[in-house]
Amino acid sequence: MRSDRLGETLLPKKLALPVFASDALSSVAYAPDEILLTLGLAGGTLALTQSWKIALVVVAVMAVVITSYRQNVHAYPSGGGDYEVASVNLGPRAGLSVASALLVDYVLTVAVSVSSGVQNAASAFTFIRGHEALAAVTIIAVLTGMNLRGVRESGTAFAIPTYLFMTAVLGMAGVGFYRKLAGDLPLAESAPLQLRPEDGFTHLGSIAMAFLFLRAFSSGCAALTGVEAISNGVPAFQKPKSRNAATTLLLMGTISVTMLMSMVALAGWTQVKYADDEANQLLRDGVPVGEGYVQDTVMGQVSKAVFSDFHLGVVLVSVVTGLILVLAANTAFNGFPVLGSILARDGFLPRQLHTRGDRLAFSNGILILAGGAAFLVVIFDADVTRLIQLYIVGVFVSFTLSQTGMVRHWNRHLRVEKDPAVRSRMLRSRVINAVGATMSGLVLVVVLATKFVHGAGYAIAAMALLFFLMLAIRRHYDHVSDELTVIEGDTKAQMLPSRVHAIVLVAKIHKPTLRALAYARATRPSVLEAVTVAVDPDETKALQQEWDRRDIPVPLKALDSPYREITRPVVDYVKSIRTDNPRDLVVVYIPQYVVGHWWEQVLHNQSALRLRTRLIFTPGVMVSTVPWQLASSQGMEERMDGPVAGDVRRGDL
Amino acid sequence: MRSDRLGETLLPKKLALPVFASDALSSVAYAPDEILLTLGLAGGTLALTQSWKIALVVVAVMAVVITSYRQNVHAYPSGGGDYEVASVNLGPRAGLSVASALLVDYVLTVAVSVSSGVQNAASAFTFIRGHEALAAVTIIAVLTGMNLRGVRESGTAFAIPTYLFMTAVLGMAGVGFYRKLAGDLPLAESAPLQLRPEDGFTHLGSIAMAFLFLRAFSSGCAALTGVEAISNGVPAFQKPKSRNAATTLLLMGTISVTMLMSMVALAGWTQVKYADDEANQLLRDGVPVGEGYVQDTVMGQVSKAVFSDFHLGVVLVSVVTGLILVLAANTAFNGFPVLGSILARDGFLPRQLHTRGDRLAFSNGILILAGGAAFLVVIFDADVTRLIQLYIVGVFVSFTLSQTGMVRHWNRHLRVEKDPAVRSRMLRSRVINAVGATMSGLVLVVVLATKFVHGAGYAIAAMALLFFLMLAIRRHYDHVSDELTVIEGDTKAQMLPSRVHAIVLVAKIHKPTLRALAYARATRPSVLEAVTVAVDPDETKALQQEWDRRDIPVPLKALDSPYREITRPVVDYVKSIRTDNPRDLVVVYIPQYVVGHWWEQVLHNQSALRLRTRLIFTPGVMVSTVPWQLASSQGMEERMDGPVAGDVRRGDL
Repeated sequence: MRSDRLGETLLPKKLALPVFASDALSSVAYAPDEILLTLGLAGGTLALTQSWKIALVVVAVMAVVITSYRQNVHAYPSGGGDYEVASVNLGPRAGLSVASALLVDYVLTVAVSVSSGVQNAASAFTFIRGHEALAAVTIIAVLTGMNLRGVRESGTAFAIPTYLFMTAVLGMAGVGFYRKLAGDLPLAESAPLQLRPEDGFTHLGSIAMAFLFLRAFSSGCAALTGVEAISNGVPAFQKPKSRNAATTLLLMGTISVTMLMSMVALAGWTQVKYADDEANQLLRDGVPVGEGYVQDTVMGQVSKAVFSDFHLGVVLVSVVTGLILVLAANTAFNGFPVLGSILARDGFLPRQLHTRGDRLAFSNGILILAGGAAFLVVIFDADVTRLIQLYIVGVFVSFTLSQTGMVRHWNRHLRVEKDPAVRSRMLRSRVINAVGATMSGLVLVVVLATKFVHGAGYAIAAMALLFFLMLAIRRHYDHVSDELTVIEGDTKAQMLPSRVHAIVLVAKIHKPTLRALAYARATRPSVLEAVTVAVDPDETKALQQEWDRRDIPVPLKALDSPYREITRPVVDYVKSIRTDNPRDLVVVYIPQYVVGHWWEQVLHNQSALRLRTRLIFTPGVMVSTVPWQLASSQGMEERMDGPVAGDVRRGDL
Repeated sequence: MRSDRLGETLLPKKLALPVFASDALSSVAYAPDEILLTLGLAGGTLALTQSWKIALVVVAVMAVVITSYRQNVHAYPSGGGDYEVASVNLGPRAGLSVASALLVDYVLTVAVSVSSGVQNAASAFTFIRGHEALAAVTIIAVLTGMNLRGVRESGTAFAIPTYLFMTAVLGMAGVGFYRKLAGDLPLAESAPLQLRPEDGFTHLGSIAMAFLFLRAFSSGCAALTGVEAISNGVPAFQKPKSRNAATTLLLMGTISVTMLMSMVALAGWTQVKYADDEANQLLRDGVPVGEGYVQDTVMGQVSKAVFSDFHLGVVLVSVVTGLILVLAANTAFNGFPVLGSILARDGFLPRQLHTRGDRLAFSNGILILAGGAAFLVVIFDADVTRLIQLYIVGVFVSFTLSQTGMVRHWNRHLRVEKDPAVRSRMLRSRVINAVGATMSGLVLVVVLATKFVHGAGYAIAAMALLFFLMLAIRRHYDHVSDELTVIEGDTKAQMLPSRVHAIVLVAKIHKPTLRALAYARATRPSVLEAVTVAVDPDETKALQQEWDRRDIPVPLKALDSPYREITRPVVDYVKSIRTDNPRDLVVVYIPQYVVGHWWEQVLHNQSALRLRTRLIFTPGVMVSTVPWQLASSQGMEERMDGPVAGDVRRGDL
């Protein structure tokens, strides 16, 4: 489909939910696991009895954050999201901090989601075990290939796995609750095991215990990742955009919370034992289970308990969980270029990322994202628990700055707003955002305190690196912009050259040469000459004879080249013209072959390209490319079009 | 030094010898080893008693080949070498076969020489042992770096190691002969060992024995590699070029033969035991020496025997042998681009390789050579004996075709030559080349018969691949040339466009834009308009207001772009002009920033580049680049110059 015919197709809520929410919803596949295994460091009893309390606090935070973001989508419907909110209200450096955090988080979204997807799929497909990193890198490679080719996040195709996932998890929860009420809910396969505390976690004092609770809570906050996606995608919604986005956000939050609490409840009832270091922490009859023990994810263990003999149900849950996690990873492939485009608009990233349709620039972005994620997967061996340590800090940096920015936003508007009804709505929004900012800030402090040494430090370092890199790019653009500014009254830049001296480069007499001569003559220059470089005396002589024989109405000049160089004699000649007539404009016409395949490019035009890169260093010289379309170039132009990652979430349908 | 000041500095014989002969001379470091260990497959006695006979046959072949090549340098002083001789006399396919063989051999020269250099250096520097492949790859990387930077094969610096090597080897031979005559030449460290036949080589029948002799002979022919280098380098010699080249060739042959026979004689007198599989074949008191035994090269063992307690002598031989082998590898880095340039001239390789000074193309050639050699070193674990199996076939393919071509050459000249004195010289030359061709052909058959399954088959496959690749490139060029040929009387290509419609692309009003407008106005087109793409309505409005305020005497047109694209609206607009006025020429002026660093290129000009690659698909459109030199571009032009690998041997000094 041509992009100019696609403008009308915006997303209804039922399609926007799967497109934007797969990241947030999918975190139910790993967030409960992280809560359980963190608490489990201090033994199985603590995990079984306390995990639901941690989950409740996570749910409370999520409720606050989602309520806050519903204010954002109304106030900033342009899709700039947290970056825009922070930039506008707290200044460009705050915006850039948010952007750095989000960029790092996109990489982590891919790494965590794919790793968790592989881990979940391994519950049903046991041959994956022991090759998790390889499987994860393979999936990243496939996603990269798809996005490089330009697969559109077309609503329906993406909707099916998301709705299947919701159906599967909520269905499993329904069956589980029913069996619990009926009293025949079996225990999990790991229920008979004992979970012994990790060394150093026995007999914890109350402060240490509180710290462990905070650590479990901050791991559980992984459930909040992806919540901000909708606020970046408001332009893609059908009208009324903001209202629909806010409704979808609420819907997503409700489903997320339901799934998370269901999973934690079912894990508790089926007495899942889930350990960080399962080989040593899990005991069977007092003896560690050892390296041979395979620990399924909480989702996998719960599904096996709930569905008992109904093996198809277990496989279904495993497959759709794997699928939605891959989909969640794919959202990063779509979100990354969108954010990149906005940052490019503001001069923080190379400018060409801003305009749509630069496939090469988009491709580079996708490759950087995939390379970063694959690097993390390999370094951390696709271990979700270790990757999670890096993950959440970026999200809460961006939540906190965005909500703080929203408070400022309302302050600013309240200063000028007179209408009491509007004012009271604004005041209410300000309270919500202030609570959101405080809550997010508190969580950020908790996350940093509990996770810095476990990995969050790396994430902070990566953000700092990006921050300064983007700042340097912006400074470079500002510097160039200053250099190019036209000072009022300075007429030098507008001064016309007195004469035009045209040179047509000739190697042989063939169609491209004749066309170049014709075009050069059409521009009626003051001086026109054809120039050839005498690399081979015999060839030059033959050329001159043919030139005379054909009676070409332009004089041909041969430049000496004792060392078989082409570039230097031409550059020297052009410079000599400029020296003799400093106010002349020299126009060099170079024939160029337009080819259809990259390998043809290797075989042609290289001398022309080299010459152009050298000539442009001389002021007063202009290089004109006279293209000649070879037969192989037919159809090439059409092949250069196609959809680009991020189209859907920008509303560029 | 600027290349235009270097034309006079051609090589005297005393510098030409080290530049061209290091490859041929250095083979004395591995050829005797290969003879000994091949014969040694059938036991130590055979190796000790028969190796000098094999060496004598190798010397005889070398004498014939060198005498033959002395004819070549007189008849073909242009430096085209075997490729030219075969192409001219046997047709382009024979020439291409020679070229394929030589290209493969250049890669093998690097792999074999560096591997042997590492093996020799390990005699003195034992820490290298066990890390030979790593050391070899490191040396290849250093050579690559040097040649990418453009190190000239300056005579003196290269001469010192070569003369040191000759002095060291001939000096060692002198000391050895003296001590042999004096009766106090000690035995080699491996002399007390027994060398038992390899399984399957005990009690060989006479045919099998003859085959083993042939195999030892063809391994010994490794001594002939590099002999053809001088015939490729005649233009670099001082006048009289051909006579000097022929003398240098004779000199090289004499030194080579002397060194080879000396080494084989000394190895026999000191009773060196040298085995292919030393751990199992060498026995001490009837028991295999096992993996712990370290087998020095023949050169290393002989030097330790000859110099006894004079440890410095041993180290010196080891170091200069290592050095000359690295130098031999470096000759390939210089010969490869020269051959590539000639093949490019004839349309068998990308054309830009022909003209000197294309650093990028040369760099790619150097990287391909280094990559191929490093690949072989890693695959064959820097094992000289295994690499040698691939090596010699290419050399003899090229010898045979070249000498056969020479016979044809004399036939052709004899048909027209009347002068009896000249005729008798020609008849004598024809006899010499006929003997050379027959001898080379026989050796080629022997090499193929004895080595095909041991590795020569891979070399043949690589040659075939290159042959067909180069043929395909030539066919592509021929095809394009046909497509571009101007049919006599066809005036369409020369037809002048009726009017010139000029478009200046404008994003902002800054100096590059004003310069582009000035240049476009200077060419006085029939229609001139400035065009901007309305990506952002506010920016476009501001631009239009500033345009009016500055009173710029060119109308500004804004093109709609609902999807933030730049390329498509411009391309569509240009196409619409062409459709309305098919005989008009559309000239699109695009301002371009000239920058000084590659990363600035990433930040600028990308939209312009993309636009140009799209516009050239439309016939009747010409793209003019109006460069604006940013301050950072100062000094960049000078940095783009420098020497290029292969300068010396092409005479491009």
